[in-house]
Amino acid sequence: MTKTADWIAVDWGTTHLRVWVFGPGDEEIAHLTAEKGMGALVRGEYEAALLGLIAPYLADGVATQVIACGMVGARQGWAEAGYQTVPCPPPGIEAATRVATSDPRLDLWILPGLSQDHPPDVMRGEETQIAGVLSENPGFDGTLCLPGTHAKWVQISAGEIVSFRTVMTGELYAAISAHTVLRHSVGEADDEAAFLDGVQDGLMSPEALSVLMFRLRAESLLEGLSPGAAAARLSGLLIGLELAGTRGYWLGAEVAIVGGATLTAKYAAALRAQGLVPRVADGGAMALTGLRAAHSSAVDDGGPK
Amino acid sequence: MTKTADWIAVDWGTTHLRVWVFGPGDEEIAHLTAEKGMGALVRGEYEAALLGLIAPYLADGVATQVIACGMVGARQGWAEAGYQTVPCPPPGIEAATRVATSDPRLDLWILPGLSQDHPPDVMRGEETQIAGVLSENPGFDGTLCLPGTHAKWVQISAGEIVSFRTVMTGELYAAISAHTVLRHSVGEADDEAAFLDGVQDGLMSPEALSVLMFRLRAESLLEGLSPGAAAARLSGLLIGLELAGTRGYWLGAEVAIVGGATLTAKYAAALRAQGLVPRVADGGAMALTGLRAAHSSAVDDGGPK
Repeated sequence: MTKTADWIAVDWGTTHLRVWVFGPGDEEIAHLTAEKGMGALVRGEYEAALLGLIAPYLADGVATQVIACGMVGARQGWAEAGYQTVPCPPPGIEAATRVATSDPRLDLWILPGLSQDHPPDVMRGEETQIAGVLSENPGFDGTLCLPGTHAKWVQISAGEIVSFRTVMTGELYAAISAHTVLRHSVGEADDEAAFLDGVQDGLMSPEALSVLMFRLRAESLLEGLSPGAAAARLSGLLIGLELAGTRGYWLGAEVAIVGGATLTAKYAAALRAQGLVPRVADGGAMALTGLRAAHSSAVDDGGPK
Repeated sequence: MTKTADWIAVDWGTTHLRVWVFGPGDEEIAHLTAEKGMGALVRGEYEAALLGLIAPYLADGVATQVIACGMVGARQGWAEAGYQTVPCPPPGIEAATRVATSDPRLDLWILPGLSQDHPPDVMRGEETQIAGVLSENPGFDGTLCLPGTHAKWVQISAGEIVSFRTVMTGELYAAISAHTVLRHSVGEADDEAAFLDGVQDGLMSPEALSVLMFRLRAESLLEGLSPGAAAARLSGLLIGLELAGTRGYWLGAEVAIVGGATLTAKYAAALRAQGLVPRVADGGAMALTGLRAAHSSAVDDGGPK
């Protein structure tokens, strides 16, 4: 017999929907995922997508608390959950938006994103991973790097997000490798040395970026550069450019990288090449820790306000 | 009654096929275009695509000379026409590859591209525009800028192409504006001041490129940046990055820009903002002049060798 949920944590991004179902005593009774991110849904489809995963765990006659973070709260998401403005602590349940649902078994709360006025910037989803990091490391003072489609560099001090900067690295890599002439020359990145060469080129010669990109094509035509090495160099160039554009965030700072295994390994290698010794944490685990922290404070306060 | 061709000039790039048909006395009797570039064709389809335009002008029992340049000679084109290596004069008919055709009315010659060993680089099509420029201005000594999908910066001295550099600006703009989150924020560029701001940012702060790109998204979300201004800034950023990566080509040099009206106007504005007074020439006209020069030398020599 399927167990009944006590509460449900949801990390809902552009490409993925990740759900953790908790029973009494905060026991994790299910971890479910679907490729139903914001990019694959229109507004009316969110509730059905969520119910498709969690319906078996909902009890009739009870509104089960669901706490969600990520692009689900964007203007194009289920419902807009607004932004908190930095500097501020990571937003908790008291800043969440309660969203009306058709199914009475849902008591849905979406956490807000963060915005920055000067220079203008936004994040959505990463603030909950940051909440997780600070929940586990309350005294952390330094820089968090959250690589991904839109990588975030975040300055943390005294429990607050002081400032942050978004870099389009992941999305640039995807667009360039699939939608330019480089699609004929890049494959699966498989060359660590070529990656690190790219990082140094991107970091030391950012002005040459769009020259060095075409050079990958020329080298593959004229010198037989392999698709794996070309992909590794392209990835390195873009991460090197990112490091050039975020130097103030990492130079001489304590840096922790938060994300999936593949990306954090790349960023750690790139930063070690600059003499840093970054710590690494899993992004999915930190999102869950952040959602748990929001749930705990809701329970402590007798429910979301 | 349709006139019969004496010879035919073909500029065949990635996206376009442009044909000029000449009668006796080098009179232009037709100018035809089709959106049948290399990107839309596979190897066996080139001859039919060309005949679809020029068949009415071919005489039976005669092989009409066709001189072509551009991606039609690429590895993925009709037939690979190889490369000449710089430094060298623009390649003429003596370097062309004769391509066998099914239809005996065609006597097809494809001009080669140019390659550079250090650093590795290639061009295909622009060399014929350069031939046109040098045919009209034999004493030109300076830099040619040929903006486009893959912009080329070319150092010319003593009638030779000394060196060149390719920058992926046009293709980056297309990929980024269509295949990243910026697709929600950019429209038709319509703001000259925003364009020039972008140029200065890209030129002075190339390391911030992938930060400034996301900032367009943040400004459109938080401050209502218009799609026209966002597009102009993005275009300016990428052209500014190009100028940063080609400074040795234009700083203190005589520069002529060769291309279509819209792009040459943008590049001229960007270079004027750096204190230059660039000349401008039409790319299609220069390609035709280059193809005519190849034809003339073929006639002078009694035919291609």
